[in-house]
Amino acid sequence: MSVHTPAYDALTRTYRQIHHFSHLQSIVSWDTAVNMPPQGNDARAAAMSEMATLLHRLRTDPALAQHLAQAQAEALDDAQRANLREIRRDWTMSNSLPERLVEQRSLATARCEHAWRSQRPANDWAGFAPNLKAVLAVAREEAQLLSERSGLAPYDALMDLYEPGMRASTVEAVFGDVRQWLPGLIQQVMARQAQEKVIQAQGPYPIAAQKSLCQQVMRLLQFNFEAGRLDVSTHPFSGGVPEDVRMTTRFKEDDFLQSLMATIHETGHGRYEQNLPRELLGQPVSWARSMALHESQSLSFEMQLGSHPGFAGLLAPLVAQAFGEQPAFEAGNLHRLMTRVKPGLIRVDADEVTYPAHVILRFEIERALISGEAEVEDIPAMWDALMLELLGLDTRGDFRNGPMQDVHWPEGMFGYFPCYSLGAMYAAQWFAAIRQAHPDLDARIAAGDLTVVFDWLRQNIWLQGSRWTTDELAVRASGETLNPAHFRRHLVTRYLG
Amino acid sequence: MSVHTPAYDALTRTYRQIHHFSHLQSIVSWDTAVNMPPQGNDARAAAMSEMATLLHRLRTDPALAQHLAQAQAEALDDAQRANLREIRRDWTMSNSLPERLVEQRSLATARCEHAWRSQRPANDWAGFAPNLKAVLAVAREEAQLLSERSGLAPYDALMDLYEPGMRASTVEAVFGDVRQWLPGLIQQVMARQAQEKVIQAQGPYPIAAQKSLCQQVMRLLQFNFEAGRLDVSTHPFSGGVPEDVRMTTRFKEDDFLQSLMATIHETGHGRYEQNLPRELLGQPVSWARSMALHESQSLSFEMQLGSHPGFAGLLAPLVAQAFGEQPAFEAGNLHRLMTRVKPGLIRVDADEVTYPAHVILRFEIERALISGEAEVEDIPAMWDALMLELLGLDTRGDFRNGPMQDVHWPEGMFGYFPCYSLGAMYAAQWFAAIRQAHPDLDARIAAGDLTVVFDWLRQNIWLQGSRWTTDELAVRASGETLNPAHFRRHLVTRYLG
Repeated sequence: MSVHTPAYDALTRTYRQIHHFSHLQSIVSWDTAVNMPPQGNDARAAAMSEMATLLHRLRTDPALAQHLAQAQAEALDDAQRANLREIRRDWTMSNSLPERLVEQRSLATARCEHAWRSQRPANDWAGFAPNLKAVLAVAREEAQLLSERSGLAPYDALMDLYEPGMRASTVEAVFGDVRQWLPGLIQQVMARQAQEKVIQAQGPYPIAAQKSLCQQVMRLLQFNFEAGRLDVSTHPFSGGVPEDVRMTTRFKEDDFLQSLMATIHETGHGRYEQNLPRELLGQPVSWARSMALHESQSLSFEMQLGSHPGFAGLLAPLVAQAFGEQPAFEAGNLHRLMTRVKPGLIRVDADEVTYPAHVILRFEIERALISGEAEVEDIPAMWDALMLELLGLDTRGDFRNGPMQDVHWPEGMFGYFPCYSLGAMYAAQWFAAIRQAHPDLDARIAAGDLTVVFDWLRQNIWLQGSRWTTDELAVRASGETLNPAHFRRHLVTRYLG
Repeated sequence: MSVHTPAYDALTRTYRQIHHFSHLQSIVSWDTAVNMPPQGNDARAAAMSEMATLLHRLRTDPALAQHLAQAQAEALDDAQRANLREIRRDWTMSNSLPERLVEQRSLATARCEHAWRSQRPANDWAGFAPNLKAVLAVAREEAQLLSERSGLAPYDALMDLYEPGMRASTVEAVFGDVRQWLPGLIQQVMARQAQEKVIQAQGPYPIAAQKSLCQQVMRLLQFNFEAGRLDVSTHPFSGGVPEDVRMTTRFKEDDFLQSLMATIHETGHGRYEQNLPRELLGQPVSWARSMALHESQSLSFEMQLGSHPGFAGLLAPLVAQAFGEQPAFEAGNLHRLMTRVKPGLIRVDADEVTYPAHVILRFEIERALISGEAEVEDIPAMWDALMLELLGLDTRGDFRNGPMQDVHWPEGMFGYFPCYSLGAMYAAQWFAAIRQAHPDLDARIAAGDLTVVFDWLRQNIWLQGSRWTTDELAVRASGETLNPAHFRRHLVTRYLG
């Protein structure tokens, strides 16, 4: 018998439309990054803006509010109720800001981001600061409005956009702990690595051979090429749609490890998307859970699995096949090359040990910015102090490789940075759970038997979509909510074990 | 001072939206043909169908009828008035069929076309005929309704969808004339070519070298790669948008001329699109004039220019550079290879001399089908008789290479075929006009000075968009409406001169 749920049905119809239009938006975005010739830009921007307007209109249709209220009282099963929760979340995010503020944000971020592209190479902090102030002013107002709607603290309300349910108090506790042991750990690891003999690999590495190597490794990682592709773009990303995942990478002739590890990273994002649940496909309950969860997949692939000594053993013959035999491609040496730890100025180039320092620093600064405890003028001094404390680096005057290095703030994405390190922590937690279920995990990886890893991720993460809150999902998957002890243990085992 | 034209402005706003959404539709269609992995198909079809629905909704918004009526009385300049005419034309086409018939047509053509894909290789006329009958029934009803709305005869009303202003009586007069002289001309050309010595080229021709050759020739033809690309798809086409033209070709290792000539053909379509007027970009007045006009550009490139003996002299060194020197690549021999005339079964493989026979045959049959003088069962006998009469070929029992070879009828596109030959005739007419203005045209082409050709096409065709009716455009460009004598003269000069 069929249950009468007209309001819920109306909501799913709207979200099916949104799903279809987002498909086009997503494929065209990919095309913009991968294929579009330069003179196509203006027409493309106008077309994409029209689509953004349409999607916004669908999400802010006044009828939705009524359907949401009515659906709450309809006889829904558990999956439908979870879908309703996620629809409400998406709707709330789209409807909490007045049109005026959406426009202001769009103008301020476009101006700041556009100027930043040339200001960053010119190290022009003085030019950048006023634009960022304008973006910050809008972000503060946005945080305030979201806070009033949700009852969350302002910074929490921003973070909730990317990582639903996560609170600054949790992040603070977790990061506060990391801050205690990380500088010491970095020193220990560096002292130990200074004793190791590492043979550098000799390039160049032809692009065609690199691309073929990347595709082979993606196959090893069971990426489904019948439902996705690998292409080249300036900034690697994983886009497209679950049924057709578009991954990109970039190649440098003098460095094959960068594109290889970036590809392994994006493959984690890609397989998550390829394996999202199909029953309610396109409905919010079938979307990926959150940014930290997504990052937990890319880092499961890149760090937990891809940088595992056993996996280096799987890579070694493929690398030698791609570029010819070299002493540097011996498995042990290749693994050492893949796991060098060295404090550096740039977050995206950081190894997994020093990476959290970059995120902690940004979290501290952006929290103070949103709360009003700090202003844009205060950023450089805070940056310098934290880089010195956490990584022992002197960054004074180097804005380009300091607070101007990321696109997040120019784009107004305050509250996003924590997701990167939360993702690394969840990844360590997932692998601890897999290891508990399969104590022979290391031997399996070394033998190329990766099925237990993928089966676990598929069952516990990928196929769950947004069925549960992040905490529920973590408990169902690993028996506990976020526990950063796994991350520390992972680092200690890998780098000091 | 600004003139108050609220109804016209409302229309242009709607058509700007349509333009933006069509941009996305067009790029994603290209992606479907060029990039999409197989498992992406269902989601893609659903997304594209959603977009088709949206575009149909925009075009059938009841407010448009009112705006059209009101705009008629507004103070519009000439370009605006031409735009209004073209908007009305687009609107009429979108609004003349009831929803029921649109759905019926979509179902009947989808079923027929889908089954045709396997029925054609199986030569299964008996299986194909009932599906085609269903498509024909819908097409007849469509023709009848369009006829009632427009006052045109039913077949004229269908043809008007593709070639506005063209009438079957004109086509009949033109084709009737061709029918008289073409079989004799074919015989004469074949007899003459039988005397010529032609050296066959020796393959294989590596794909990478073919692609690079095609790109070089596109540059020679001044295709703007800053506003377009060349890629590979199963069926070559020119798509994308005027600011970002997406051309495709396909390569066979044992034949370089096929992809080269197909590329030259598509480059003609591509340059037309790249050079459409920019003042009212996206408005119907800036769209390409018609199907025959579009084909007149691809055939100006492929046949008038690309198969010119002087152009073969430009190609020869590029071909030799791509594949190494061969006696076959000598300019004169290359030109002979490019201009072989031989009656064959397949329209898309036909040379420019026998091509009109394929179109005349289809025109005669489809006119009889729409008028009710013939039924689907009568097609094979008509086909056999006309192929024998026009090309001297016996096609009995060969449905696969006979009436089942084209996708047009399964897709319900009755009235389209004449455009191909009308395009060839217009192309000859344009080149006669260019030659009149530049009596040294042949020498210029041989010297690689193609500017006079492109300047003439740009000024007279490309930049005119849909500013004029086809007849007006032809008169402004060449001093006369369609005059097929130029086409005959072209064939006689090239093949018997």
